[in-house]
Amino acid sequence: MDLELIGSLAIAGTTKIVLLSSDGLGGFPHPDTGRSELETARLPHLDALARRAVCGLIRHVGPGITPGSGPGHLGLFGYDPIRFQVGRGVLEALGIEFDLRPGDVAARGNFCTVDAEGRITDRRAGRIPTSRCVELVDRLRAIRLPGVEAFVEPVKEHRFVLVLRGAGLSGRLSETDPQAIGQRPLPVRALEPDAERTAGLVNDFVAGARRLLADAAPANMVLLRGFDQLPALPRFPEVYGLRAAAIAAYPMYRGLARLVGMDVLKTGGTFSEEVATLATHWDAYDFFFLHYKDTDKAGEDGDFAAKVAALERLDAELPGILARRPDVLVVTGDHATPAVLAAHSWHPVPVLLAGRYATADAVERFSERGCAAGSLGTLPAHHLMPLVMANALRFTKFGA
Amino acid sequence: MDLELIGSLAIAGTTKIVLLSSDGLGGFPHPDTGRSELETARLPHLDALARRAVCGLIRHVGPGITPGSGPGHLGLFGYDPIRFQVGRGVLEALGIEFDLRPGDVAARGNFCTVDAEGRITDRRAGRIPTSRCVELVDRLRAIRLPGVEAFVEPVKEHRFVLVLRGAGLSGRLSETDPQAIGQRPLPVRALEPDAERTAGLVNDFVAGARRLLADAAPANMVLLRGFDQLPALPRFPEVYGLRAAAIAAYPMYRGLARLVGMDVLKTGGTFSEEVATLATHWDAYDFFFLHYKDTDKAGEDGDFAAKVAALERLDAELPGILARRPDVLVVTGDHATPAVLAAHSWHPVPVLLAGRYATADAVERFSERGCAAGSLGTLPAHHLMPLVMANALRFTKFGA
Repeated sequence: MDLELIGSLAIAGTTKIVLLSSDGLGGFPHPDTGRSELETARLPHLDALARRAVCGLIRHVGPGITPGSGPGHLGLFGYDPIRFQVGRGVLEALGIEFDLRPGDVAARGNFCTVDAEGRITDRRAGRIPTSRCVELVDRLRAIRLPGVEAFVEPVKEHRFVLVLRGAGLSGRLSETDPQAIGQRPLPVRALEPDAERTAGLVNDFVAGARRLLADAAPANMVLLRGFDQLPALPRFPEVYGLRAAAIAAYPMYRGLARLVGMDVLKTGGTFSEEVATLATHWDAYDFFFLHYKDTDKAGEDGDFAAKVAALERLDAELPGILARRPDVLVVTGDHATPAVLAAHSWHPVPVLLAGRYATADAVERFSERGCAAGSLGTLPAHHLMPLVMANALRFTKFGA
Repeated sequence: MDLELIGSLAIAGTTKIVLLSSDGLGGFPHPDTGRSELETARLPHLDALARRAVCGLIRHVGPGITPGSGPGHLGLFGYDPIRFQVGRGVLEALGIEFDLRPGDVAARGNFCTVDAEGRITDRRAGRIPTSRCVELVDRLRAIRLPGVEAFVEPVKEHRFVLVLRGAGLSGRLSETDPQAIGQRPLPVRALEPDAERTAGLVNDFVAGARRLLADAAPANMVLLRGFDQLPALPRFPEVYGLRAAAIAAYPMYRGLARLVGMDVLKTGGTFSEEVATLATHWDAYDFFFLHYKDTDKAGEDGDFAAKVAALERLDAELPGILARRPDVLVVTGDHATPAVLAAHSWHPVPVLLAGRYATADAVERFSERGCAAGSLGTLPAHHLMPLVMANALRFTKFGA
């Protein structure tokens, strides 16, 4: 079922949809208690919602595949993340809200440490502080390349973004990062004939960086990877016929929403402020993508108790969302981030879909095991949007 | 999700994996008791494992499709059996551990009975004893074909294998078996222009066999089908980055494992000996494919009680496997062989996956109905290996 078919079924309506993505929502049982973060938290509003919603589990990429935040959210937006792949350079540029334009080539950059023979001794330059990253990025801005503009932007610690802008560039380039200690950075190679010129320009940039950073140890060299251009993604508002807005405090998620053509609303840094933004703009949109980051952050930190607390804070905000009386409300996440793994994981993620035409099933608790008994079963994340559209009575029938 | 993507996610690790395939594992309720073989057997170790594992059902080819042992196992190894098809001639050659080489063309042969007009009266020559098959195969070895070597090998009763070896052969040939009584064997036709010469050689072989077998009724003619060459399968150890070994008493399963590039370990004829072989080679490999045949044999014989007993013997060997402390242990089968059908069947097959990061679900019994309630749901067999890799922490994430 591809987006062209989906789009052909979309019809106009007046219903309102909220897609709440709690980042890294899914968890894993704590070894001491046998209960996951969701099973440990007190979630009266989410549980009540699960009891009147249709529930299940979603898998964003495939069984056993751990999604990054990019593929995880593209799946929630209805895009098959295997078909629509977005390069790391592009995601990194989106993550700092760089105004990436069609044709630009973006790469993820690392400052690294090389020895006197040019061999890598630390791929992350001892994780230099962000302030030092900012200084060194400023040095790199002196590099001039013939016929193109080069943008160098700091991200965090040893990470930066390189963007080349100009006509006829290609992102089909090999990486300079050998992903191993003791080796020299690799020259960039063109992976298609049209990328020869771009490869030459990037190699010139790297040569320039080597010269300018010679005295900057431990950050005395750069590594570049994940070269890519903005993908040509079908535009979400056009596919679904929805005036769509994103409310997200973190730049990466705003960037992803912009990538698929959603309006990105100005909001504050807390989830309460996001919910207030929802209220303010309620009348102007049909679809709201609402992003909650704290669950992922606590999971990544391996802090089980903090993740439980983050879930309870999310639960407490639910009445503010329900007060808008959305016709369809989905609560789910872009991937699991179990505190016991302190990382994203492959485990399927609970989902609930509440709406007038969504049958309540036997699910009593909004949790991994609770939702496993839901009548949605385990479904690919990109099958969720068609269900949302149907429940919002915004799909016509297929065939006569 | 193809093997190329899967392979790109594989990372190095030190975890150990055991995939235990109990051949023809799945069954069907006995009409007198309403309980299947698994539901009838006393399986304390498997049930205990199911309680702490994630469970589900697997389907090897598609809904309603009964898998042969070849596709059944390819699915377990992560190969979509519809995409990677292996001809019957090749499977038959693997089943007798014939040293099939790239470019060889293999066919499954039957001795059959024809009347004075050359019309088939028995497609299996009255299932002649294997000793007679051996004698007649020896006669057929006198046939000489220009420019190629012909190997004829007995299998069992009326079955033999024909292999042609030489340059420029093709397996794209029609079959000589009309699959009907009262008709004459068909001449072989080339299904692609490059197969013309091979077709001529096979027809010469059949003409020779007709002459040499004229006085050998009821085995006075041959039928050939399932012409194929060794398929170019991605190599399992390279796709997954696993040092992989197969432990199987039966030749067919050793052949299948060799086909995907696993090391095939020398072992005894009993499952206890297989488990001992596992212990001996534990340190040298990351992945073990362990095959148990008795469940299928009893099912094929239509012997419900024997299948129950075979399951109980398997259960008794489980502590020997668990003693190795595998990081991930999968117990499943290559297809169902319900005793009530005395044949392979299309019913999905129970699976359990035990490991530190596999959440226990509500499943209490390792059985068809028990596992149907598992949180894996019903999944294609070739989605199992990605889950195994994830649970062994041998996959990196997809996208940033």
